[in-house]
Amino acid sequence: MTPIITGFARSPDRGQGLARDMRVRWALEEVGQPYEMRLVSFAEMKEPAHRKLHPFGQIPTYEEGDLALFESGAIIFHIAERHPGLLPKDANARARAIAWMFAALNTVEPPIVELSMARIVESNKSWYEERRLMLEERVRARLTELANRLGDADWLDGAFSVGDLMMVTVLRRLNSSGLLEKYPKLLAYIARGEARPAYQRAFADQLAVFKSSQGG
Amino acid sequence: MTPIITGFARSPDRGQGLARDMRVRWALEEVGQPYEMRLVSFAEMKEPAHRKLHPFGQIPTYEEGDLALFESGAIIFHIAERHPGLLPKDANARARAIAWMFAALNTVEPPIVELSMARIVESNKSWYEERRLMLEERVRARLTELANRLGDADWLDGAFSVGDLMMVTVLRRLNSSGLLEKYPKLLAYIARGEARPAYQRAFADQLAVFKSSQGG
Repeated sequence: MTPIITGFARSPDRGQGLARDMRVRWALEEVGQPYEMRLVSFAEMKEPAHRKLHPFGQIPTYEEGDLALFESGAIIFHIAERHPGLLPKDANARARAIAWMFAALNTVEPPIVELSMARIVESNKSWYEERRLMLEERVRARLTELANRLGDADWLDGAFSVGDLMMVTVLRRLNSSGLLEKYPKLLAYIARGEARPAYQRAFADQLAVFKSSQGG
Repeated sequence: MTPIITGFARSPDRGQGLARDMRVRWALEEVGQPYEMRLVSFAEMKEPAHRKLHPFGQIPTYEEGDLALFESGAIIFHIAERHPGLLPKDANARARAIAWMFAALNTVEPPIVELSMARIVESNKSWYEERRLMLEERVRARLTELANRLGDADWLDGAFSVGDLMMVTVLRRLNSSGLLEKYPKLLAYIARGEARPAYQRAFADQLAVFKSSQGG
């Protein structure tokens, strides 16, 4: 059964691959599972039909036969459990790869999203500059800790896993922030992720969606 | 092998059970797995020995023989996978319970943490009042969506699961915010979680740690 995932009809990131469907596309490409995309507008995301799939009115969702899932973390974990290639076979290594997936989503991503949100909704406020410095400091603390742990390794814990896939997509949200430049090891880590053929296919596919949404 | 988890030697929540070790204690009580606690000071959390267990210098961590884990989500999932009682047996229901765990951590918790952080580090700033209203609005949007999905059900998807355990602990962080009062269904949902014997045992144990940290 070919899974169907949802993505933005017009991605606000203008094809940079920062929307959360990119993670799911990448995971599906890594395991060689074909999929179909269903594009939704911002209005459709908030309608009852979509909220039945996603209680919080967001993308991505994942439909496969009787199963409907939401949350990029849950979808990627589901894919990783059912196909070889994204989770180590050794039980302890598998648990640690899952820990990195949670760390990406619950420890590293929240301050990054907070910084991006401030840029979008607070940049015209009197306090923006002072707050931006606070938020950047908070993100930098996480980047320093992550770079220290990664060290000179290629991936966070042994072979490439679902933990790296998630962490690379989270870090890419900082692309235009200027914050990554002081972390050459993290830049190289992101570049290793982006160099993977599965990533490249997923990126090209989401870019094609954005380009066609621009008409022509 | 008895697992060892870490928690605050002096919890900043003063025994309200809001620290993230409470989730792990609750999960272990639900499945009937005894455990040992190792208490760490704020200084110890940032030292190399603790960072080896937790790259971001936080609690909780989980040690069991050769395995060392961090991130409350990963630890609870590990417990749920190895013991019956926290994940449905049906494959689709299991995937949905996992989705709720990710939703609690990646969609519901971040705006709640942001609001709490603002209260701690920005309450003396000129902008605090204006920002607080923005943040509360963001939290309220999530609570409305969650209450709509829960409806009159006892739990988020069928029987009590790891998704409910995580969501209840996330919502409890709003206890002193005054925001939950408009959501009687969510208040009843939290109360159902708190009424579980496993919750009560875990709560009493973390409260005892706090009380003894107060000397006597």
